[in-house]
Amino acid sequence: MKEPPRYAIVGSGALGGYYGAKLAHSGCDVHFLMRSDLDAVRRNGLTILSKEGDLHLPKVNACPSPQEIGPCDIVIIALKTTSNSALPSLIPPLLGPDTAVVTLQNGLGNEEFLASHFGARRVMGGLCFVCLNRTAPGTVTHLGHGMLSIGEFKGPPQDRTMRLVTDFQRAGIEAKAVQSLITERWRKLVWNIPFNGLGIAAAANVAQVLNDPHLHAAARALMAEIIQAAAAQGYAIRPDFIDSQIESSWPMGDYRSSSQVDYESGREIEVESIWGEPLRQARAAGAGTPRLEFLYALLRHLAAPKPG
Amino acid sequence: MKEPPRYAIVGSGALGGYYGAKLAHSGCDVHFLMRSDLDAVRRNGLTILSKEGDLHLPKVNACPSPQEIGPCDIVIIALKTTSNSALPSLIPPLLGPDTAVVTLQNGLGNEEFLASHFGARRVMGGLCFVCLNRTAPGTVTHLGHGMLSIGEFKGPPQDRTMRLVTDFQRAGIEAKAVQSLITERWRKLVWNIPFNGLGIAAAANVAQVLNDPHLHAAARALMAEIIQAAAAQGYAIRPDFIDSQIESSWPMGDYRSSSQVDYESGREIEVESIWGEPLRQARAAGAGTPRLEFLYALLRHLAAPKPG
Repeated sequence: MKEPPRYAIVGSGALGGYYGAKLAHSGCDVHFLMRSDLDAVRRNGLTILSKEGDLHLPKVNACPSPQEIGPCDIVIIALKTTSNSALPSLIPPLLGPDTAVVTLQNGLGNEEFLASHFGARRVMGGLCFVCLNRTAPGTVTHLGHGMLSIGEFKGPPQDRTMRLVTDFQRAGIEAKAVQSLITERWRKLVWNIPFNGLGIAAAANVAQVLNDPHLHAAARALMAEIIQAAAAQGYAIRPDFIDSQIESSWPMGDYRSSSQVDYESGREIEVESIWGEPLRQARAAGAGTPRLEFLYALLRHLAAPKPG
Repeated sequence: MKEPPRYAIVGSGALGGYYGAKLAHSGCDVHFLMRSDLDAVRRNGLTILSKEGDLHLPKVNACPSPQEIGPCDIVIIALKTTSNSALPSLIPPLLGPDTAVVTLQNGLGNEEFLASHFGARRVMGGLCFVCLNRTAPGTVTHLGHGMLSIGEFKGPPQDRTMRLVTDFQRAGIEAKAVQSLITERWRKLVWNIPFNGLGIAAAANVAQVLNDPHLHAAARALMAEIIQAAAAQGYAIRPDFIDSQIESSWPMGDYRSSSQVDYESGREIEVESIWGEPLRQARAAGAGTPRLEFLYALLRHLAAPKPG
């Protein structure tokens, strides 16, 4: 990897805009692949609004095509998973022989998808614990948190993993390397599957799920199913993780998950990566997940584009 | 029972208006207990609009208080179950020593509720297979069907059961006596729990449930849970009842259950009688019903009155 590494950010909505702007501001060589916000960003740059301090980058490298960017050392995927089918044509112009491809996307199956197209050796992933909204073209509002857990798709952290963690840390992001990326993905789903799902199917925010004894029990039962499904795949999560997830949810109050916000705003929901792929993997491993199966059926229909 | 018997209809929305008007039109002595539609009915009578022939009764016995009606031979309960708490004060003035109380309400628990207040000996029930809408005060639109299955709360049909069946038949209603009323209630729930429930939680009409492979599987899995729960209570329903329920649903097309119509119109949903009480009875009998439990939690929250 040459110094400094060349970064591409694919998909510059809230997630790509935020992490890309932080890297660029810290001095990294960052190239943003974007379409919808391109004109606004070329005119006004990128703006992050945050209680921790606003950030304005008047001039960033923003391109509408990967050919104009060319090969990079690190390609960060920040598209919604519902747009994954665009990746096989978007990514190749960004790849050199040793380029790493890092998905910051939600849920399961994204590393596998990238590996199947570009080879498992390139693939890394990161879990984002952050609350963001893209509030205007080129403007991201940071509502809180930001922590990244970064790991290799296959195997423990390598030099490149630590290098990426260090770059994010220098950019002011709390980042760490994880030993088993996929275990961490299942752990995150233990929260996302019930809370994002009930946010949509029951129209209930975090406090409403916790305070309603029936929804609360449903959330815990879903969590237990996810832990069983993960175990059946060989990813061990301790059962008391449920209690700790519930405990850490109380301070969130009436927080609405990004899926609930998206659904209520009429935007696309990542049904397959958050609910569908975990269900399919649970089934393949022989784990019974009746509530996840039921919830997935509801969400799939609720999230389907409506005619007219 | 004196001849002709004296009928009271408690709750004169779509259900009470329809069956009461049919009985009155056939010559029965029918007294309607009603509040919201009282003025309209006293002024204009009761009107049933139906493809099978409209029916207009210019003058019916309509009262706002049970005291004005006094003791009857047969009291038909046609209130929504969400108003059951009004019954302990509404019913006593209508009771003589041998008065029968017949609930035409949805779901489980209504016979038990009446029995606990007025004695099991009085209690009968009827299942209504009918599509009705109250389209204006004093006006009910009959969209189709109308069959009644009538039975005793405890034990097989008696003389009074057959008498009631005969009165309905004379009124042009397809009616029959059933050997086990509560078995029939569970059989009806095999359809209502999935289709009314998915109508609300997935915003899916009958055709959408049937045509979506995941919702279709969810409906069948719920049906299997209900049949298991009924069996655990001692009510046997053959497993191939699922296939026959699915088969008979295809011709319904894009029919929306009354619960879905009520929910989408902002009206109250009978969550406890259709989902809550079956779940509690399943639990008491030790039957595992994870999907029903999950669906109930969603519906309970979705149907709760919203602040503001």
